[in-house]
Amino acid sequence: MPETLLDRRTRLLGPNVRLFYHDPLHLVRGKGTWVWDAAGRRYLDCYNNVPHVGHCHPHVVEAITRQAQTLNTHTRYLHENILDYVERLTATFGPQITSAILTCTGSEANDVALRMAQAATGATGIIATDHTYHGNTAAVSQLSTTMPPIGGFGGHVRHVPAPDSYRPLGGSPQTHATAFAAAVEAACQSLIASGHGVSGLILCPAFVNEGFPDLAHGFLTEAIAIVRRHGGVIIADEVQPGFGRTGPQFWGHVGAGFAPDIVTMGKPMGNGHPVAAVATSFEIISAFRRAFRYFNTFGGNPVSCAAAAAVLDVLKAENLPARAAETGAYLRDGLRKLAEKHSVIGDVRGQGLAIGAELVSDRASKAPATELADRVINAMRAEGVLMGANGIHYNVLKIRPPMPFGKVEADIVLQTLDKVLDGL
Amino acid sequence: MPETLLDRRTRLLGPNVRLFYHDPLHLVRGKGTWVWDAAGRRYLDCYNNVPHVGHCHPHVVEAITRQAQTLNTHTRYLHENILDYVERLTATFGPQITSAILTCTGSEANDVALRMAQAATGATGIIATDHTYHGNTAAVSQLSTTMPPIGGFGGHVRHVPAPDSYRPLGGSPQTHATAFAAAVEAACQSLIASGHGVSGLILCPAFVNEGFPDLAHGFLTEAIAIVRRHGGVIIADEVQPGFGRTGPQFWGHVGAGFAPDIVTMGKPMGNGHPVAAVATSFEIISAFRRAFRYFNTFGGNPVSCAAAAAVLDVLKAENLPARAAETGAYLRDGLRKLAEKHSVIGDVRGQGLAIGAELVSDRASKAPATELADRVINAMRAEGVLMGANGIHYNVLKIRPPMPFGKVEADIVLQTLDKVLDGL
Repeated sequence: MPETLLDRRTRLLGPNVRLFYHDPLHLVRGKGTWVWDAAGRRYLDCYNNVPHVGHCHPHVVEAITRQAQTLNTHTRYLHENILDYVERLTATFGPQITSAILTCTGSEANDVALRMAQAATGATGIIATDHTYHGNTAAVSQLSTTMPPIGGFGGHVRHVPAPDSYRPLGGSPQTHATAFAAAVEAACQSLIASGHGVSGLILCPAFVNEGFPDLAHGFLTEAIAIVRRHGGVIIADEVQPGFGRTGPQFWGHVGAGFAPDIVTMGKPMGNGHPVAAVATSFEIISAFRRAFRYFNTFGGNPVSCAAAAAVLDVLKAENLPARAAETGAYLRDGLRKLAEKHSVIGDVRGQGLAIGAELVSDRASKAPATELADRVINAMRAEGVLMGANGIHYNVLKIRPPMPFGKVEADIVLQTLDKVLDGL
Repeated sequence: MPETLLDRRTRLLGPNVRLFYHDPLHLVRGKGTWVWDAAGRRYLDCYNNVPHVGHCHPHVVEAITRQAQTLNTHTRYLHENILDYVERLTATFGPQITSAILTCTGSEANDVALRMAQAATGATGIIATDHTYHGNTAAVSQLSTTMPPIGGFGGHVRHVPAPDSYRPLGGSPQTHATAFAAAVEAACQSLIASGHGVSGLILCPAFVNEGFPDLAHGFLTEAIAIVRRHGGVIIADEVQPGFGRTGPQFWGHVGAGFAPDIVTMGKPMGNGHPVAAVATSFEIISAFRRAFRYFNTFGGNPVSCAAAAAVLDVLKAENLPARAAETGAYLRDGLRKLAEKHSVIGDVRGQGLAIGAELVSDRASKAPATELADRVINAMRAEGVLMGANGIHYNVLKIRPPMPFGKVEADIVLQTLDKVLDGL
């Protein structure tokens, strides 16, 4: 019997490497918000945020091709692409963010950001939520709460409860923000007592892995003030909400109502080309450059910068952030109408095209329907619509499509979800 | 006065970001082994190993373009590109290496390799040379001997003296290998005593950063046996010598005469496209997959694999590893002839197109001519030939050009170096 694609994958890539869906997809082609499998079947992509301006966008492909034909080298030589790009990128932030280091992955960006916070403060303690993911390097993996690394956790991380707007601490948005701030204060005190000190707080401003909670503008104000009072800096991990996904405010932290000291970004930045960045103030980048010798051979090469610049071009030319806000609102409205019919949808939330629909087995107790969420995403896949499930209880349907997603595509999601929920 | 490119770079990328040459190059175009600056001047590239099969090789550009137009997504879906590539890659190694994880940078590859060694052994102690560089993540930077990180070194790294064939320990190749092995034994004992245990030894098989020492085949045999006796694994960092640079044996460790447990690779793998890998046995990859949850969004995407596959195509079609061996031998012969005339050249060494010429102020004492090496590379740049300087004393001229470099280009290097040394 010939070796299956799955067996071959295990042999070559190792065991326990997760694939999406019980019946994994073998994709061969993508265009806009659609992908095709090897049998020629088309699927609506409601999940992938990496092909940000659409799968295989011709403007991005052309920019990559043109620069790859011309020159691709490192930043020990002068080149205008990286400077032009960092100029355009930093112009999208508040005045405190002026400079950037380009890397190849969001993990590398967060690995640098943690050291920037150390260089800026002289401390090593760091605070994150207890249901987050910031990347895969050894240092960044220390922020995880699962799977203790060999040699153990370093003792310099404190976790605070991931915000859950559907089950707010203390029962209301006000008590929730205060309780969150109290947890941050306790984490700071613990880091000070342990001698690590407070280098900062790292969070995704839209808490995407935590299940897209709907938090009041200013929810984080008190917590952030506490971190700063203890000398720490604020790192906004914009790998998921950044580049207009939440709407014309462009960055998740604008929607959340705070100004970070350090911003990291990755996935959508080059529409799939491996490019990522850490942006910060001139003061913090200088402290980092003094404390650490950092050079990234591929980081900021002319091709990566051309890809990233092309993504900014398309976002503007096609007015995608405004479209994301509009389509997202339309889709959330539709999901709320579906919730009137299907009591399993306990909560609908999110911003722009980062949308969560939380499934519960009982609305009164809000008991998470985790197993059901898994069945739903697999049934949706069978119907040709690709989405995921995440959140604290892994029961939140995750809809995070490429940005050209429009009302036509939203209607397909709504009709298909209605059919799938009817069939359960 | 308008802002200079240098000032703009400092403002946007931060201070203390090193550039090559006193008069930095502003490159705009590359082809084969040549690059052009903004004024239209052509330079012979004797330094860059990233554009491995030549700057902007059309076969690689076409492979990137074709796949970028078709599909670019992550490895949670099935795709044949990554499997086909890992199959081709592992076929270039001995039978112990069967599987691989694809990352975006050599730093990420080494960050994973260190954790693979931990997973395979349960220990965390690691041995490296005292003049090496394996990358830029927080974990990998711990291998460095310079610039202690904030919070200090972790205490789990032991350094052994970088091999220097020009000044062998004990005075001969035999005493050198024995002394190196004794240093490795002492490092193992120290790691065991400190409770870290021996997870492994990581080294560049050609010791490129250490200055390309000419070591006898089997120099490392005793040291490697010691590490294995203490339960550790051997990591060959092939980021610099790999992919045929040292000749048809294809990998540095083959030339050095040992079979590693884990191999990391990066820079030349995608001819500039950010792709890198860690290859190992099924047993070790399985131990890693069990101990760590690892996923790299961009790692192993279809475009990166297409770029990497195209590099393998060109290496074979243009017979570049054999050409590298031939051109390298020709260039080393020429350098040795130059050394007869210029006593400042104390030693010429290397393999294939990884060539070092060590400059000394006095051949009897072998006193390093570090400042002179800096003057030479800047004078060569002024004459249109780009090379670097490295080694333990930063006095080794580093010639490591793209692989299509031939005898015509070698003659240009030799004539220009003769002229520059005449003018000193």
